[in-house]
Amino acid sequence: MTSPIPAGFKMGGFHSGVKRNPNKEDLSLIVCDQDTVAAGVYTTNLVVAAPVVWDRARTPSDKIRAVITNSGNANACTGEQGDKDNAELAGIVANKVGVSADQVLTMSTGIIGHHLPMEKIRPGLDEVFQRLGTDESNFEAAARGIMTTDKGKKVAARECEINGKTVKLIGMCKGAGMIAPNMATMLAVVLTDAKLNPVQAKQLLTDVTNDTFNCITVDGHRSTNDTLLMLASGKSGAGELSGESLDKFRAELHQLCEDLAKQIPADGEGSTHVIEINIEGCKNRDDAFRIAKTVADSALVKTAITGGDPNWGRIVSAAGYSGVSFDPMGMELIVNGHLLYRQGTPVKFDEKTVSQSIKDSFETDVTLKFTEGDTKVRYWSSDLTVEYVKFNSEYRT
Amino acid sequence: MTSPIPAGFKMGGFHSGVKRNPNKEDLSLIVCDQDTVAAGVYTTNLVVAAPVVWDRARTPSDKIRAVITNSGNANACTGEQGDKDNAELAGIVANKVGVSADQVLTMSTGIIGHHLPMEKIRPGLDEVFQRLGTDESNFEAAARGIMTTDKGKKVAARECEINGKTVKLIGMCKGAGMIAPNMATMLAVVLTDAKLNPVQAKQLLTDVTNDTFNCITVDGHRSTNDTLLMLASGKSGAGELSGESLDKFRAELHQLCEDLAKQIPADGEGSTHVIEINIEGCKNRDDAFRIAKTVADSALVKTAITGGDPNWGRIVSAAGYSGVSFDPMGMELIVNGHLLYRQGTPVKFDEKTVSQSIKDSFETDVTLKFTEGDTKVRYWSSDLTVEYVKFNSEYRT
Repeated sequence: MTSPIPAGFKMGGFHSGVKRNPNKEDLSLIVCDQDTVAAGVYTTNLVVAAPVVWDRARTPSDKIRAVITNSGNANACTGEQGDKDNAELAGIVANKVGVSADQVLTMSTGIIGHHLPMEKIRPGLDEVFQRLGTDESNFEAAARGIMTTDKGKKVAARECEINGKTVKLIGMCKGAGMIAPNMATMLAVVLTDAKLNPVQAKQLLTDVTNDTFNCITVDGHRSTNDTLLMLASGKSGAGELSGESLDKFRAELHQLCEDLAKQIPADGEGSTHVIEINIEGCKNRDDAFRIAKTVADSALVKTAITGGDPNWGRIVSAAGYSGVSFDPMGMELIVNGHLLYRQGTPVKFDEKTVSQSIKDSFETDVTLKFTEGDTKVRYWSSDLTVEYVKFNSEYRT
Repeated sequence: MTSPIPAGFKMGGFHSGVKRNPNKEDLSLIVCDQDTVAAGVYTTNLVVAAPVVWDRARTPSDKIRAVITNSGNANACTGEQGDKDNAELAGIVANKVGVSADQVLTMSTGIIGHHLPMEKIRPGLDEVFQRLGTDESNFEAAARGIMTTDKGKKVAARECEINGKTVKLIGMCKGAGMIAPNMATMLAVVLTDAKLNPVQAKQLLTDVTNDTFNCITVDGHRSTNDTLLMLASGKSGAGELSGESLDKFRAELHQLCEDLAKQIPADGEGSTHVIEINIEGCKNRDDAFRIAKTVADSALVKTAITGGDPNWGRIVSAAGYSGVSFDPMGMELIVNGHLLYRQGTPVKFDEKTVSQSIKDSFETDVTLKFTEGDTKVRYWSSDLTVEYVKFNSEYRT
């Protein structure tokens, strides 16, 4: 964190008792100084949590005043009671801010199918309001308050000059398991002091999500709660964005979201490698994306990387069953800069050198080139380890 | 094995040295007494092995005289040399039988991207011809000769009365990893003494594959070599099949293929559970199949079963991201006979009892009911264990 907090927001975190560990915040609150532009993108899972239903109906907006997040409980598959609990959460926060419940957005993350422990959250809300502030420490507490199985907080910051003013962007996200690319795939909040209207905010968010939060996977399992929110206070003084200034802002937002998104597979449950998959030479984005996703989700590709094994047959065969039509003879595979496969035949390479290059680095680069066109896609996955299986088979037992 | 071998076939297996362990057969040969009807279904992976290309071009047929399979090397991604090696394999067998190479089908399974060690296979072919026979022991040696990471041979047999004669069916298959539903998904051979024409044989095979070999997964990774062959000698004396007799035969073939198919996820690499997924109440087969496949492939569902954890949120959320449109409020989940979820809300159930029922049995039954129609699908998956990850990250390193 080198950049300070954009003007217009106060934030904080608090441990209310939803999580067992008393040192871990489980409430995260952002309060806006005045009515604020907000947009969101959400999971496309048919089975959605109460807060997703709530936020979808209330964004984009130019009247948002707060975002309250609880971690440790997803409030998903909780029926009518889940909707009531969520509305109560928004209502309590709204009362304290002195606005209507419709001006409060909510997010939840954690275990599915359990009712929110409101008896712990209600008093916790009083406390989190006491802890609001505009320092980095407040932001970091808020970022910890949205974590579940994450090893640490995931934050990023950017700034740029627009019309002679400094425009700031700051973001937090969480996610380590149940991660698949589909709109948002985790919880994330971006705060900026840029001046945007709700339609612009929504469009910007959709644009950058496609190449960032939509291009990551841990286990291909899409969550019920995925939410990415952006709040824009307009307090930078840079005025409304359009043309070149809007492009400049979009580039910064893109980089911020990429910085945040990559932290998720890098922290994938049990992961020992983040795998960057570069797909080049495809006919269109959809084709490139499908190949990338198929390679990224293959348990056999993931375990090969875990073992430092340049077992390229697994990568090439995964591309082959992606459902995309391509000339198999035109496919070329490069791992960490080493050519492993070309024109339908194995290439002679030093297995030990490639294996060592995988073992020596936390990031493995897998590049697949095709001869169908000139579309590229980048995608990030985590490897699959004994620890992932242990963790997820012993999650509750 | 209670049923003897159908008339018209000799078979055997031999260790030629492709596999390191001298006690493991790596060649499997079936020779037909005369020109025989044969049909096949194959992988739809774009990247296919040389033997798949060879067999596809030569089936269905009524002139097949032999099937030669090698295990330990897939002859996939091996370019022109791979095609030459495969043609040589077929040619050697054809010479020995005294027919043309076009009358010999080939299958290969094992590591991708290495040329066949022909210097080991050539002398091995002499030997395997010495070991041909019509006893169960010959059949079992042939069944072992197609194995790779399988813990044991996978065989099944059926018989039925048609027109006063006994019609026999016998089958072998292999597969434990790199298993996903797509036409065949492994190597399998069915032998029968029923009288079929090539078109009938192909149609029967396609019919039964949809509900058997197409409904299994281990890791969702589709192979380059998947092949299912059926050879029909016509020697039962039951005459040509049509109408009722054809239906009777189809039912036996279906059961045989189901018996074989289920053995694959049951022997999934490292698996401690086979998961039978029953999807009911869908609008059509495609919807039911997509939901089943999504649940079956979820690493989080698999690891929950590994741990004996009735973590139903993972199952319900997997159905939700299958891409199938359904009413989430109409979904109902039953695990091992226990209702866990209904009408969008958790159901009170005894977690310990359900957990114990998962732990106590090798087979876990997961039933998801919908209210969209009356189509059902059954699907089989294996769980995901520490041993799967260890095995596949240490496969070659």
